[in-house]
Amino acid sequence: MEGTAALLAILRDGQARTKADLAQLTGLARSTITQRLDVLLNERWIVPHEEAIASGGRPATAFSFNQAARVVLTADLGATHDRLAVTDLGTTILAERMADVQIDRGPEATLGWLVTSFHELLAEAGYTLDDVCGVGVGLPGPVEHSSGRPVNPPIMPGWDGFAVPEWLSERLGVPVLVDNDVNIMALGEHWAAHPQTDHLIFVKIGTGIGCGIISDRRLHRGSQGAAGDIGHIQVAGGQDVLCRCGNTGCLEAIAGGGALAAQLEGAVTTRDVVSLVRAGNLPAIRLVRHAGREIGTVLASMVNFFNPATIVIGGTLAEAGEHVLAGVREVVYRRSLPLATEHLRIQFSELGGRAGMIGAAVMVIEQVLASVD
Amino acid sequence: MEGTAALLAILRDGQARTKADLAQLTGLARSTITQRLDVLLNERWIVPHEEAIASGGRPATAFSFNQAARVVLTADLGATHDRLAVTDLGTTILAERMADVQIDRGPEATLGWLVTSFHELLAEAGYTLDDVCGVGVGLPGPVEHSSGRPVNPPIMPGWDGFAVPEWLSERLGVPVLVDNDVNIMALGEHWAAHPQTDHLIFVKIGTGIGCGIISDRRLHRGSQGAAGDIGHIQVAGGQDVLCRCGNTGCLEAIAGGGALAAQLEGAVTTRDVVSLVRAGNLPAIRLVRHAGREIGTVLASMVNFFNPATIVIGGTLAEAGEHVLAGVREVVYRRSLPLATEHLRIQFSELGGRAGMIGAAVMVIEQVLASVD
Repeated sequence: MEGTAALLAILRDGQARTKADLAQLTGLARSTITQRLDVLLNERWIVPHEEAIASGGRPATAFSFNQAARVVLTADLGATHDRLAVTDLGTTILAERMADVQIDRGPEATLGWLVTSFHELLAEAGYTLDDVCGVGVGLPGPVEHSSGRPVNPPIMPGWDGFAVPEWLSERLGVPVLVDNDVNIMALGEHWAAHPQTDHLIFVKIGTGIGCGIISDRRLHRGSQGAAGDIGHIQVAGGQDVLCRCGNTGCLEAIAGGGALAAQLEGAVTTRDVVSLVRAGNLPAIRLVRHAGREIGTVLASMVNFFNPATIVIGGTLAEAGEHVLAGVREVVYRRSLPLATEHLRIQFSELGGRAGMIGAAVMVIEQVLASVD
Repeated sequence: MEGTAALLAILRDGQARTKADLAQLTGLARSTITQRLDVLLNERWIVPHEEAIASGGRPATAFSFNQAARVVLTADLGATHDRLAVTDLGTTILAERMADVQIDRGPEATLGWLVTSFHELLAEAGYTLDDVCGVGVGLPGPVEHSSGRPVNPPIMPGWDGFAVPEWLSERLGVPVLVDNDVNIMALGEHWAAHPQTDHLIFVKIGTGIGCGIISDRRLHRGSQGAAGDIGHIQVAGGQDVLCRCGNTGCLEAIAGGGALAAQLEGAVTTRDVVSLVRAGNLPAIRLVRHAGREIGTVLASMVNFFNPATIVIGGTLAEAGEHVLAGVREVVYRRSLPLATEHLRIQFSELGGRAGMIGAAVMVIEQVLASVD
């Protein structure tokens, strides 16, 4: 119904407002507002408050958004490690779980486990499926936004084109949204830590490298949903290094966690590289610092092009600490234009491992609230 | 007044609508709509039509946007060459002029000439200053968007921090908006040739190199208004080439028209390079093709990062024809991700030399219509 979602969008900031407030803010007819508020009250999206009037006159009723109206099921699925949660409509975590799950077991095994886990988490938080307004899932590979299906995901054998939203929706009976992990990390970090920032780049440095882009406070997915794939930008001096994409000299093939592990004795995974750095292993520290500089070279170009206010560094390799950040900063501040770096902040993710999970919840909440009618 | 600009935004597409149509589209109360339409009719922003009803009942009045309600003064000032025009609210050109003017004569001489020329053009088109709703100006250097003032413009001595909007507004008595030339070219090209495209990059290749970015159908200026400055991205193999910005290896220092002219006998300006290419001069053709490849390398990275649907190539060097475009395409299609290039179009500007002038008019019209109340 025209105007219902608009009223909800206004009330979502948590402030209580009277009908008179809402009429002034929207220009909608008073009768229309009464009608729309009745719908929202019936569905528990909002709650009424009796507000005392200072002058002692008749109290006006104010209405505010009800964060407890529904819950969201959210999951950030990684190559080998998953995080899931039940949250309220304000992304507060009501129950949470981490688990080591191999995504290369394929979609049915992974998603079957996810459904079971969601049921357990819901019970733990004291809710049922009737309270759930939607499910948000992040996957470690490219996802076609309109269909929520993985598109040639390199580290997810068996998942190409799999109808993740339909499969989950049939079993859970609620709408399901799917996006790639870096996009939802950007969404989550922006929502929780930088809500007033217009333009932000979230860089995930793990085994691979990618970024999520916030433009004008909204996720920029690009024309084919392929935006943010900076891992396959060619960097100078790497012409003879072959990348798994088939090209040579890609950033990921030079500075990704996998590339670093291959160059270090005693390291197989990105986590091993992080452990070596934390243990003070000098070759590991030198490699990570160098990787930071290579990533910085690519980000310097993105700063000139996009002029973000903030760059957030996340992902497993970020856990190696200041060595990565120092390398990135060194090159970005040397190579980007002074006007573009004057107020630029480059910092670690504040949400850390929870960024994707929170972001998947934000994706669901925004879609659900926008379609209330 | 709440809702007036919203009604205008709906009617701007040229389609006529009745009060009933507008009530349904906006959810505004009927009395509110009548009130707002009266304001718009009084100010001539819209015009009424008596529409016959098929059933033979009482004819309903429909309303449509009046493109002739006001005119816009628009100018695209270059380093040595200016274009100006009077347009209506649909960017139709009513009178137009080109002139060779050196922008390094300083702001007062240049803008004084502009004021005189605008008066002459208005008279030629049969209008007076009373009909003008705003002035749009593009400048060949960085402009702080909020103030409309040039910021350290390298080729505009005497212009740094000059209050262009205030200076013109005092003499013309109407609001003045100023932006850099590449931003308005992107706006103009998007408006006129790609209105349904969500994400577009307009690359201007002249003496310098820069781009304007359309994200989600709106101009992306970035956090400091510095977005699009790809001319100073470092390209491989250019480490020993000094750029006027103080860094080495910048794209502009390798592939800009100035850099090419310096390497060609008989060429001083970018236009000279274009003339040599058109005359079939082989060294010039080879240089321009190579420049296209270097620009393509940078654009390939931007395609991976931003995933635009369309890249438009404009600016003086674009007049050298297919050699530039071939070089750009060659590298972008080789180096960008298949998903990002699957539907990517790379083409010349359709507006050509008029892109900036039309874009400056669009900038003014959008601001004026959004603030009608």
